[in-house]
Amino acid sequence: MPTATSLRKDETGHLPPLAKASWQRQRAYWSDAFRRVRGETEARAGRLSPEDQVVQSMPDTSPTKWHRAHVTWFFETFLLAPHAPGYKIYDARFPFLFNSYYVAAGPRHARPKRGLITRPNAEEVGAYRAHVDAAVTALIEQADEETCAKIFPIVEIGLHHEQQHQELLLTDILHVFAQNPTNPAYDPDWTMPQAQPDKDAFGNLPSGIHNIGHVGDGFHFDNEKPVHPVLLQPARIERHLVTNMLWLEFMADGGYTTPALWLSDGWTQVQAEGWDGPGYWQQIDGQWFAMTLAGLQPVDLASPVCHVSYYEADAFARWAGKHLPTEMEWEVAARAGLMDDAFGLVWQWTRSAYAPYPGYRAAPGALGEYNGKFMINQMVLRGSSLATPEGHARESYRNFFYPQARWQFTGLRLVDYP
Amino acid sequence: MPTATSLRKDETGHLPPLAKASWQRQRAYWSDAFRRVRGETEARAGRLSPEDQVVQSMPDTSPTKWHRAHVTWFFETFLLAPHAPGYKIYDARFPFLFNSYYVAAGPRHARPKRGLITRPNAEEVGAYRAHVDAAVTALIEQADEETCAKIFPIVEIGLHHEQQHQELLLTDILHVFAQNPTNPAYDPDWTMPQAQPDKDAFGNLPSGIHNIGHVGDGFHFDNEKPVHPVLLQPARIERHLVTNMLWLEFMADGGYTTPALWLSDGWTQVQAEGWDGPGYWQQIDGQWFAMTLAGLQPVDLASPVCHVSYYEADAFARWAGKHLPTEMEWEVAARAGLMDDAFGLVWQWTRSAYAPYPGYRAAPGALGEYNGKFMINQMVLRGSSLATPEGHARESYRNFFYPQARWQFTGLRLVDYP
Amino acid sequence: MPTATSLRKDETGHLPPLAKASWQRQRAYWSDAFRRVRGETEARAGRLSPEDQVVQSMPDTSPTKWHRAHVTWFFETFLLAPHAPGYKIYDARFPFLFNSYYVAAGPRHARPKRGLITRPNAEEVGAYRAHVDAAVTALIEQADEETCAKIFPIVEIGLHHEQQHQELLLTDILHVFAQNPTNPAYDPDWTMPQAQPDKDAFGNLPSGIHNIGHVGDGFHFDNEKPVHPVLLQPARIERHLVTNMLWLEFMADGGYTTPALWLSDGWTQVQAEGWDGPGYWQQIDGQWFAMTLAGLQPVDLASPVCHVSYYEADAFARWAGKHLPTEMEWEVAARAGLMDDAFGLVWQWTRSAYAPYPGYRAAPGALGEYNGKFMINQMVLRGSSLATPEGHARESYRNFFYPQARWQFTGLRLVDYP
Amino acid sequence: MPTATSLRKDETGHLPPLAKASWQRQRAYWSDAFRRVRGETEARAGRLSPEDQVVQSMPDTSPTKWHRAHVTWFFETFLLAPHAPGYKIYDARFPFLFNSYYVAAGPRHARPKRGLITRPNAEEVGAYRAHVDAAVTALIEQADEETCAKIFPIVEIGLHHEQQHQELLLTDILHVFAQNPTNPAYDPDWTMPQAQPDKDAFGNLPSGIHNIGHVGDGFHFDNEKPVHPVLLQPARIERHLVTNMLWLEFMADGGYTTPALWLSDGWTQVQAEGWDGPGYWQQIDGQWFAMTLAGLQPVDLASPVCHVSYYEADAFARWAGKHLPTEMEWEVAARAGLMDDAFGLVWQWTRSAYAPYPGYRAAPGALGEYNGKFMINQMVLRGSSLATPEGHARESYRNFFYPQARWQFTGLRLVDYP
Repeated sequence: MPTATSLRKDETGHLPPLAKASWQRQRAYWSDAFRRVRGETEARAGRLSPEDQVVQSMPDTSPTKWHRAHVTWFFETFLLAPHAPGYKIYDARFPFLFNSYYVAAGPRHARPKRGLITRPNAEEVGAYRAHVDAAVTALIEQADEETCAKIFPIVEIGLHHEQQHQELLLTDILHVFAQNPTNPAYDPDWTMPQAQPDKDAFGNLPSGIHNIGHVGDGFHFDNEKPVHPVLLQPARIERHLVTNMLWLEFMADGGYTTPALWLSDGWTQVQAEGWDGPGYWQQIDGQWFAMTLAGLQPVDLASPVCHVSYYEADAFARWAGKHLPTEMEWEVAARAGLMDDAFGLVWQWTRSAYAPYPGYRAAPGALGEYNGKFMINQMVLRGSSLATPEGHARESYRNFFYPQARWQFTGLRLVDYP
Repeated sequence: MPTATSLRKDETGHLPPLAKASWQRQRAYWSDAFRRVRGETEARAGRLSPEDQVVQSMPDTSPTKWHRAHVTWFFETFLLAPHAPGYKIYDARFPFLFNSYYVAAGPRHARPKRGLITRPNAEEVGAYRAHVDAAVTALIEQADEETCAKIFPIVEIGLHHEQQHQELLLTDILHVFAQNPTNPAYDPDWTMPQAQPDKDAFGNLPSGIHNIGHVGDGFHFDNEKPVHPVLLQPARIERHLVTNMLWLEFMADGGYTTPALWLSDGWTQVQAEGWDGPGYWQQIDGQWFAMTLAGLQPVDLASPVCHVSYYEADAFARWAGKHLPTEMEWEVAARAGLMDDAFGLVWQWTRSAYAPYPGYRAAPGALGEYNGKFMINQMVLRGSSLATPEGHARESYRNFFYPQARWQFTGLRLVDYP
Repeated sequence: MPTATSLRKDETGHLPPLAKASWQRQRAYWSDAFRRVRGETEARAGRLSPEDQVVQSMPDTSPTKWHRAHVTWFFETFLLAPHAPGYKIYDARFPFLFNSYYVAAGPRHARPKRGLITRPNAEEVGAYRAHVDAAVTALIEQADEETCAKIFPIVEIGLHHEQQHQELLLTDILHVFAQNPTNPAYDPDWTMPQAQPDKDAFGNLPSGIHNIGHVGDGFHFDNEKPVHPVLLQPARIERHLVTNMLWLEFMADGGYTTPALWLSDGWTQVQAEGWDGPGYWQQIDGQWFAMTLAGLQPVDLASPVCHVSYYEADAFARWAGKHLPTEMEWEVAARAGLMDDAFGLVWQWTRSAYAPYPGYRAAPGALGEYNGKFMINQMVLRGSSLATPEGHARESYRNFFYPQARWQFTGLRLVDYP
Repeated sequence: MPTATSLRKDETGHLPPLAKASWQRQRAYWSDAFRRVRGETEARAGRLSPEDQVVQSMPDTSPTKWHRAHVTWFFETFLLAPHAPGYKIYDARFPFLFNSYYVAAGPRHARPKRGLITRPNAEEVGAYRAHVDAAVTALIEQADEETCAKIFPIVEIGLHHEQQHQELLLTDILHVFAQNPTNPAYDPDWTMPQAQPDKDAFGNLPSGIHNIGHVGDGFHFDNEKPVHPVLLQPARIERHLVTNMLWLEFMADGGYTTPALWLSDGWTQVQAEGWDGPGYWQQIDGQWFAMTLAGLQPVDLASPVCHVSYYEADAFARWAGKHLPTEMEWEVAARAGLMDDAFGLVWQWTRSAYAPYPGYRAAPGALGEYNGKFMINQMVLRGSSLATPEGHARESYRNFFYPQARWQFTGLRLVDYP
């Protein structure tokens, strides 16, 4: 579940390229970045009670408390244990509990059972965080130059990793609250970010050979590499995201009851789950409401549709007589500035299966498990969402989920071919 | 899951029969009993963090927080709503969340999803309890005589009901903790109550016609009635409970690997679950440990075996060349004082299927759902356990669980026939 | 799934007690009985195509071809292999395929996968039967007196066993055909046997101590022993079986939509399976039809209701303000001639859980697995059904099925208590 | 599950392009092609007993009898009903039973329950086939020119469709027989076709822009269109298929026990299913055997590995330090003659997810459901297998299965990048 733009974008610009800055300034930079990102996690969790933080509502989600501990384990395992002289594992029982899927990093607790672990509790996880925070900060601030060169890349990926979990923390707690018939609000004052008005406008995607993938020395995940050429046909991409208003038209036109609009696996899912609208929607006295971070709210027609699966996005595109873009088309359009709201509202499903770029090879060791082993059965999403942390998005970024997933902040825009 | 002896047994004896005491003394009695039982629930929950209280580890168990709220809903629904003038439901959302299985009392939340409800949280449930406590106490203390006659039986069943949940609160949290690889202790100082030493002694059960069922005007559940005659054959019942030492002999002799010892459904269960010892047992470096209220502890040879299912109890009896007693044999033996440790250590499986006594008919209305509708597919247990609240056990008491259940404090004693 | 009356009842009466007849006459008797029972199996299978004979429609049922082979394996394993000099197993692969549940007789194929075995096919199973028939007949006819004494009891239980499978052959193929939307008929000319008209009459069951269990030296299964005394209260048992007409009243009165009528597990089943009438019933244009051995037929009001589960029988009794009888009451009533249609139409659910009689102990060895290991989670049925072979029923006979089972020919009669 | 090369390739060459031949010659051609293809289906089924033909061993497979009837229904529904004057549906119950997944063609029987339908039986399906054969032949031979122009494309797709089911008929019956512990042989004389010896040779795939997709007016499925350009990087593709010898090296080197070699979903599958070798392999006394169309046979080292899933193919490629080719690379290599055994032994997994070609849009109506709605969650295979009918393979052909599927004749070849 990658996310992230270079953290350096938060900076004033005095440092780029950071690698050329003095070690002292680099230490200051990473110490500060570490403090800020770690603080954002705690700020997001701060609205939640101990009870909120322990529950796991389905195998795909994780408890808040687990997220807070897991990202801490990441720093402890990959940064402190190998690089902080004399560092001792905070609690010998934690690596088993808080390793997620890194087989090379040792045995781990079963993912679907994370919600059964009441101890350590939220407060104890807070103490674990504080302990690791102090050790990381001390390591950064006291590292000699040789150590700096080794540890800053690990700090960097650790922070990007934590930012990914910041987004999941919100999507997961929303799923928890959506199971509660009393519809609790994560933040009663929350509102959906404003989308650009739909002007029915298009951007013309230039055909020909384009380079795809992350360029330059900024931070990126391994799945964004290698940069490679692709051949695009001419296409017209919509400037706007698909809105709730359009989605209601799709529904009114039999969108959820017309099998010819659906992929076969999608139709099976619609029937098995009884889907009749986007995730978290329910009809009360003839009006549609959606469960949001502010609790149950009337559906806002002008907002982009959210919490739709790939199957639904694909059916909608077929109904509209258009297509989902490929991830390559999306990336080219993003670089060309052809889209509104590419970032910051909803992730946008593409019709590209998540696959390695030509020449991709996962790194050896535990960190090589970060992305590569998930390159099957999932579809790529591009852009970023309202839950993506500040400064954490880029054109080459590849997010991915199974085609039936709906609990992320996922929407779509369309493309067609002249 | 009935439990309870008459609460009146806690009393000094000045009151029996209570119905003859002055209304003023009765008010004082029930007010005090209410305070004591309610306090015991909070005392049992008091060792648990908010996180501990919210988790549900399997569909059969319930969160601590749910237990605390459900027993409160019971008083609110069956006592305050119909009998306290002007009483308003504390929170309109709670009846749906905290009704257990009383179809006649309205719709209710799905049992297997109780652990997904983080709000109201433990503290808010505490406030709910305090509110209802005040209202019940005021109702008792201010009731006129006519009202007293109506409400004291409801108070009484409400308290027995709460005592049943006090036992479940412990069995359920033990199950939660047993899912945690760190083996948390509910109470580090807890120890198993001491059993009477096994003297290999027997009591001779007199053959002939005996009356079975609850006699007299003390409190009882409807499933203990009507009193009715049964015909017993002569039998010898063991004075002692089956111990861990004996159970280890059974295991060493191939108890869990010899299909001929098992009921067919039991053997299927053994293989499906991979059982090789009682519930919560695990072998570490050749020694057996058991997860207990004090965390993981070495198995104590002299203690009665605990957390065995009916299937295991039945297989053990076959291995021993004996039988489990019928519930009638157990009750006659209990009245005759033929057994040690009949109460207070482990519930004892009988070979009687849970069925209505001749002439039994469940009461109309929601309280009629208390027992009758569970009279299928379950086996009767007699006695009481270490978790049964003080003064809450009697000879005619009928507990019942499915034959595969192991998370209760369940053991056995044997009988044979000369 | 026991069934059977003494086969000797088919006899003229010259032989009783058979044990006193000359060996020559006994040989002739058993040879003839063997030929007749084996022939009845083939006659029942004779209406079925090879395709009909191979399919298994759920784990509880078995293919016709399997039934034909399994009963043959029974004779081969328990009679020929130990007692026929020089007998060689017909096909070394068959014992694995055709052992049902006799753990002591060796490993066996998984029950739910019996329908995946296309080879040996029906014709090859016919050849297997012919081979074993010849060997058994030769053994019987050539046995010396000592051998006769050993083998006749095995022949006898083998024939009773085969008769049980004759009944299952019909119930199982009806279930297969009920899965087919074209509603095939096993026998287009089949009709339900005529029931005695319902005269709203009762038999008075005498209270007091009665002996229960099989008396005398005739054939019986081990679960009918020991004979033992039971104490009955006075009761009135209905002469007639509950009819379809009454069942339609129950349905019209909300029988399948009123949870208060149902055991909790039964109500769960009703909702999970969407039951709204007896098994195999469907409503077409407002009229109720039932899938029968003659295909889909209009429901006959005067016939006894059939294909109801224990849960349904129990709910009906509650609705009617009466009870199902205990198996002891049924047996006493049967001996006293208080019931019409006790045999030959539908098995009658009792409210007795299937349990060992006092003092029962299963025999050692494979044949000891016949009954004893199923004595849990099942309810006793008494009488016999339209599918029970001629001469195969007796007052002490105990049939048993899980409370949710509906594919047998199962109905009910009621009792009440003055 | 597409397959097929143009049937016209079977012809002498006098006809191409067929569309220019006289109508009379076209009638003769199609009448003959129809007779030949229909005959091949019956020849393949002819080795099977009625019992063999009725069983369904898992939801993904279908009974032989169903295949024979379904392809017949296809001609009846799409050819005879709309185009044969006065044609009446042979049996009104068959369209429901033998429609596979064409929602637009009406309701249909549940796929996983096809094996429960014993009637119509194999013989009756034979009669259905004969009836439809006669009607189709008469239609072809008597059609006027206008009708010919309409019906020949339907005959053509109907025959390609039937050829696809001819392959499935074999893969499905092999799966049925593999469930049988007696290991039946479909054809005792069957042998795996000989592969070209592995000379460790490579073909150099030219980089640059290539056209992909079916060119010309020959038969093809809609998923092979539109022809479109793709950009390839330089690559080296192996001439030979991966053999059993190499696969045993992979196994010996911990292939099935090293999670780092596997996609995450693949590793989950390995553990859930206990895979330790290709599908249908079992080890007996240290030697590996495989269940084949000739029954259980020792694994032949020189043969291409078969019955491996995508997950296994992908893990093998990672172990070998190479890759599976994309479907575009495979197609370009095929056209350039760079591979041995591209056709006729085993389908070859590619690393391309099954997706529409740019500009693809499924046709309206039932036949539009043929391919398009399956374009999710599946991986493309190229080439053809030993079970693919004669003359039924082409370079642009796209087969597709879920990544866990193993019951098809599936293998692989590798590619790497210089």
